[in-house]
Amino acid sequence: MRWQEHSLELLDQRLLPAEEHWLTIEGASGVAQCIRDMVVRGAPAIGISAAYGVALAARGADDRRWREEVHDAIDELAASRPTAVNLFWALEKMKQVLETCNSRDEAIQQLADKAVAIHQEDLAANLTMADLALDFMADTAAGQPFSVLTHCNTGALATGGYGTALGVVRRLHEAGLLKRVFADETRPWLQGSRLTAWELSQDDIPVTLNADGAAAAIMAAGEVRWVIVGADRITANGDVANKIGTYGLAVLARHHNVRFMVVAPSSTVDMSLESGGSIPIEEREGTEVREIRGIQLAPSGVAVFNPVFDVTPASLLDVIVTEKGLVESPDLAGMRSLFR
Amino acid sequence: MRWQEHSLELLDQRLLPAEEHWLTIEGASGVAQCIRDMVVRGAPAIGISAAYGVALAARGADDRRWREEVHDAIDELAASRPTAVNLFWALEKMKQVLETCNSRDEAIQQLADKAVAIHQEDLAANLTMADLALDFMADTAAGQPFSVLTHCNTGALATGGYGTALGVVRRLHEAGLLKRVFADETRPWLQGSRLTAWELSQDDIPVTLNADGAAAAIMAAGEVRWVIVGADRITANGDVANKIGTYGLAVLARHHNVRFMVVAPSSTVDMSLESGGSIPIEEREGTEVREIRGIQLAPSGVAVFNPVFDVTPASLLDVIVTEKGLVESPDLAGMRSLFR
Repeated sequence: MRWQEHSLELLDQRLLPAEEHWLTIEGASGVAQCIRDMVVRGAPAIGISAAYGVALAARGADDRRWREEVHDAIDELAASRPTAVNLFWALEKMKQVLETCNSRDEAIQQLADKAVAIHQEDLAANLTMADLALDFMADTAAGQPFSVLTHCNTGALATGGYGTALGVVRRLHEAGLLKRVFADETRPWLQGSRLTAWELSQDDIPVTLNADGAAAAIMAAGEVRWVIVGADRITANGDVANKIGTYGLAVLARHHNVRFMVVAPSSTVDMSLESGGSIPIEEREGTEVREIRGIQLAPSGVAVFNPVFDVTPASLLDVIVTEKGLVESPDLAGMRSLFR
Repeated sequence: MRWQEHSLELLDQRLLPAEEHWLTIEGASGVAQCIRDMVVRGAPAIGISAAYGVALAARGADDRRWREEVHDAIDELAASRPTAVNLFWALEKMKQVLETCNSRDEAIQQLADKAVAIHQEDLAANLTMADLALDFMADTAAGQPFSVLTHCNTGALATGGYGTALGVVRRLHEAGLLKRVFADETRPWLQGSRLTAWELSQDDIPVTLNADGAAAAIMAAGEVRWVIVGADRITANGDVANKIGTYGLAVLARHHNVRFMVVAPSSTVDMSLESGGSIPIEEREGTEVREIRGIQLAPSGVAVFNPVFDVTPASLLDVIVTEKGLVESPDLAGMRSLFR
């Protein structure tokens, strides 16, 4: 994602890895549509894009109705996707800045500055989380490289840069501690094959792609020591909403004595919700499962259940890593000690 | 699958559900290739096709070298796929018939008769298994319809007709006990979306398709009472090789207190192997995961781990249903009581 003052440039993630096509977006509605259509996805990247969308709204607004129009843009962006809380977090930050502005010119400047700051802080958080996770894992590694398994895409494409779970993978690789990363292809949207395998291949990080259903066999074979994933929302008790399939992986990891790590910036934490049962879980259209790029994979009229997130209870997690610190064996007390 | 004395007609399962295209095969090599390329798949259907392939070999054989040529055909068919034991079981039955034949004409007749018998017995076994499973499940259903989840395709397309696990689903539906069947799409080959959803839709059985990664969320929501699957090989202790993803489902089912049923004819039982660790697990080409119908889903060179079966330990099963009877909480003693 590239900010150009008058526009936001987004790499169209729907077309990867076959095609690298950048879109130039000049208004908040365009950003909202890109979030809805998954041109850009990944909880932190959604939040950052939305912040830039608010900045674009100020630039495009009428000189007299600018405050109202920016508020409308915030509402439109907030309605783009329901599950990742980073979106609402970023919009709230932008709204706070908006309240301090006394003219459209000031809003244009201040909102753009804030969006850039949110972007930069996310990148910095990723680097900090990678450091914290490396320290934590290195203790048990005794210098011996090990393999991990990841789900969905949590790399530069999903964040302000570097990545959350994939940032930890990168750091393990840099430290010579990564043997191999198994990447779930992550149906239905194939973030694993299309994005994670692509990002890791570009950086020469050893990656092996597998069908989601093969993860259990990989664990049973003793191939991986850790499962490392991102998050779309973490509640006050440490429950985690993340890409559909994450919860099953956590059950499997516990069964196989494989450790389970969630890596997410504090913007993913929602202390206003007691537990994961309150997180709104987005369901998307059945065509995502029935078709791939217009090719029919199932009878056209067949019913589809397509929730795109699930909730992993805190009890199945070994550790949540944020830029503010680690929460081991997460629960309400542990979460409260970092997030008041 | 249709036997026409001079040829075997196979519905090309690679093209479903978009296209219903029948292939006419006139020799054993053609049948072997169809098995290798998954024109026909499903453990029982592989065995039946191979039996017909042996019959075709006799018909096409040289009048003097017919016995040798049929033996060669058996060897070629045996090398087509490694995991499903029904293939080797059927070829062994055909070999026994071959030994009793004294002329090519006799072999043509006897081998064709035996192949037809194997086909008919498989269909009869499916009907018996459906009855046994219904009796077993009805006890706990108390007349209330319930939902089940299945994996891969175990219907008419995978068997001599009716189906193993899907036969049980059909029978539950006929008995008014089926609320809904959730069908895992079953990556990478998508047997669930392409074949199971297609078969069930054609018979107006209520089916909902889901990505494999959604199965855990479906179980957590209390949506299903049973997971019902087929098998490619069952060892003496009750371990089960089946389509990749089955093992993970069994772990998830146990975690959620969902019951787990394996339905397979006795031709799937291999008492010569002590446990599942000895079953050869086929790995297929990475292109099955990297591409769909020539469309690139992942970086072209990326490494892929593509085992197409996994092994579920007997300890995770509630019951194995065969046409010879049920083995509850399967173990060596239980298996031996039915299969000596």
